Amino acid sequence: MRIRVFTTGGTIDKVYFDAASTYEIGDPQVGPLFKEANVTFDFVVESVMQKDSLHMTDDDRAVIRERVAAAPEKLILITHGTDTMTETAARLAGLPDKVIVFTGSVLPARFRQSDARCNLGCAVGALQVLPPGIYIAMNGRVFPASQVKKNRAQSRFEPKA
Amino acid sequence: MRIRVFTTGGTIDKVYFDAASTYEIGDPQVGPLFKEANVTFDFVVESVMQKDSLHMTDDDRAVIRERVAAAPEKLILITHGTDTMTETAARLAGLPDKVIVFTGSVLPARFRQSDARCNLGCAVGALQVLPPGIYIAMNGRVFPASQVKKNRAQSRFEPKA
Amino acid sequence: MRIRVFTTGGTIDKVYFDAASTYEIGDPQVGPLFKEANVTFDFVVESVMQKDSLHMTDDDRAVIRERVAAAPEKLILITHGTDTMTETAARLAGLPDKVIVFTGSVLPARFRQSDARCNLGCAVGALQVLPPGIYIAMNGRVFPASQVKKNRAQSRFEPKA
Amino acid sequence: MRIRVFTTGGTIDKVYFDAASTYEIGDPQVGPLFKEANVTFDFVVESVMQKDSLHMTDDDRAVIRERVAAAPEKLILITHGTDTMTETAARLAGLPDKVIVFTGSVLPARFRQSDARCNLGCAVGALQVLPPGIYIAMNGRVFPASQVKKNRAQSRFEPKA
Repeated sequence: MRIRVFTTGGTIDKVYFDAASTYEIGDPQVGPLFKEANVTFDFVVESVMQKDSLHMTDDDRAVIRERVAAAPEKLILITHGTDTMTETAARLAGLPDKVIVFTGSVLPARFRQSDARCNLGCAVGALQVLPPGIYIAMNGRVFPASQVKKNRAQSRFEPKA
Repeated sequence: MRIRVFTTGGTIDKVYFDAASTYEIGDPQVGPLFKEANVTFDFVVESVMQKDSLHMTDDDRAVIRERVAAAPEKLILITHGTDTMTETAARLAGLPDKVIVFTGSVLPARFRQSDARCNLGCAVGALQVLPPGIYIAMNGRVFPASQVKKNRAQSRFEPKA
Repeated sequence: MRIRVFTTGGTIDKVYFDAASTYEIGDPQVGPLFKEANVTFDFVVESVMQKDSLHMTDDDRAVIRERVAAAPEKLILITHGTDTMTETAARLAGLPDKVIVFTGSVLPARFRQSDARCNLGCAVGALQVLPPGIYIAMNGRVFPASQVKKNRAQSRFEPKA
Repeated sequence: MRIRVFTTGGTIDKVYFDAASTYEIGDPQVGPLFKEANVTFDFVVESVMQKDSLHMTDDDRAVIRERVAAAPEKLILITHGTDTMTETAARLAGLPDKVIVFTGSVLPARFRQSDARCNLGCAVGALQVLPPGIYIAMNGRVFPASQVKKNRAQSRFEPKA
């Protein structure tokens, strides 16, 4: 079992820079978190961009699609900001034979209390047993990407009405 | 989506008691961890026993089987010590229509660095998409329970030869 | 031994709000951190304001001075943003018989890795053995407040040249 | 400012070994914790032994005394198990011109929730401002070592009656 992880930024990777009193997106956390979890599958991490997903453009999404299409692996995990996760997922439609799972977190992985570890685990658990398609794993749930939306007021994902 | 969680003890729930300089199994951690992860599925936690799995008896396993059989839910998550997880799993064979996933951890959930959160997430991600059967989710992998064993020297689960 | 803690905001208390993708100053962390550390001295926490110290005004500092002067306790701990900690400290000169120690942190207490716990401990350790005066406890050092400055490029406190 | 740290074991350094289902004393944590706290004083860590303090012998204490006496530094920090901290402290009486502070923790530093960081900070804060003597820094308090005892039922240090 081998997974290719594309990291694109988002809250999961945010870090605090005291010098500027700002939070910015730092190095991808998925590799250290997988190591902490002592995972035994093969994985490679490919950092595509480091963006807050509110700032992602159509061109950014085209780049992500190209990279995913070019990946030799069938199993694709994408870490992504939550605010436009569904938009990027929609842009990956039509890539045959890929299982693609998006995840991220509402609190940075660098926080003591965070949903990052559970979300990553949930994404990986689903990725290896799902049929080809595009999914979002958030809040302990796994949704087909086209059937879910973020409830921003509640900071959680819900099925579309 | 609703999950019934049976907790049986194991390293995942270990706590340190200074007064006796010993580590013992404390309150189940799965509820607090699900809350930290902001999960949106329904779940109920049922503590069956608090044992190191090396000390589990046949009678203990009979009790676990009774409880699982009596559960109204289809989706069953069992937290369990890793050393005899496969033995208990073998005792649950033949319960129709249940998806049963075992998980646990090699380092206690109360540690700063632990595989507990990722393992729980992985178990939940797989539980909701797998067909009925008995599975073990450890090391970021999901295995049919009858096809895996613990490599104790390496503290990890591997496919049976 | 009894300590009055005045909290004024600063990075130590920062929290992340997903709904707005912003970091803001949340509830004071000193009480939970003292509880985690199992401290046995008496303390009371008084929240004066919740500000990034770059936004503190002369009026804010006048309020802090009033509150400290009115405190019945001799031992005063003030948590404060690091950028203008020395300015506020300078405004407390001339309060007789008080031992006043400022502390804070460069990474939020809610982060997994943070200087907050060590800084708070250092401040408390010094507070109970120092003579009356105004001090800053940061980076594991205790300085008379008038003899230290923040090196912002390095995010640390250093003796004035 | 330069500190010599002698590590002797104790709960502060305990780690969990899954292969044996036991907790043992691991590598000293004081160095990593000081690094996390971004301390700016010089320090050197000298590991003397790795023992649960209940297992310390008179010979062990003689070794600790020799090492402290031989240290070129005036400021000495000793991390030690809490159960016999006061016995070891009593054996260091009569070393001239040294400020010696003992600390440790009731929960291992590797736990998410632990008193280790606050205790280390408290010890360091006191160490640099105290006159020569032997002290114990625990529970946010700093005591002359001869005037304190551990209340084992409550897992905390208290003044001697």
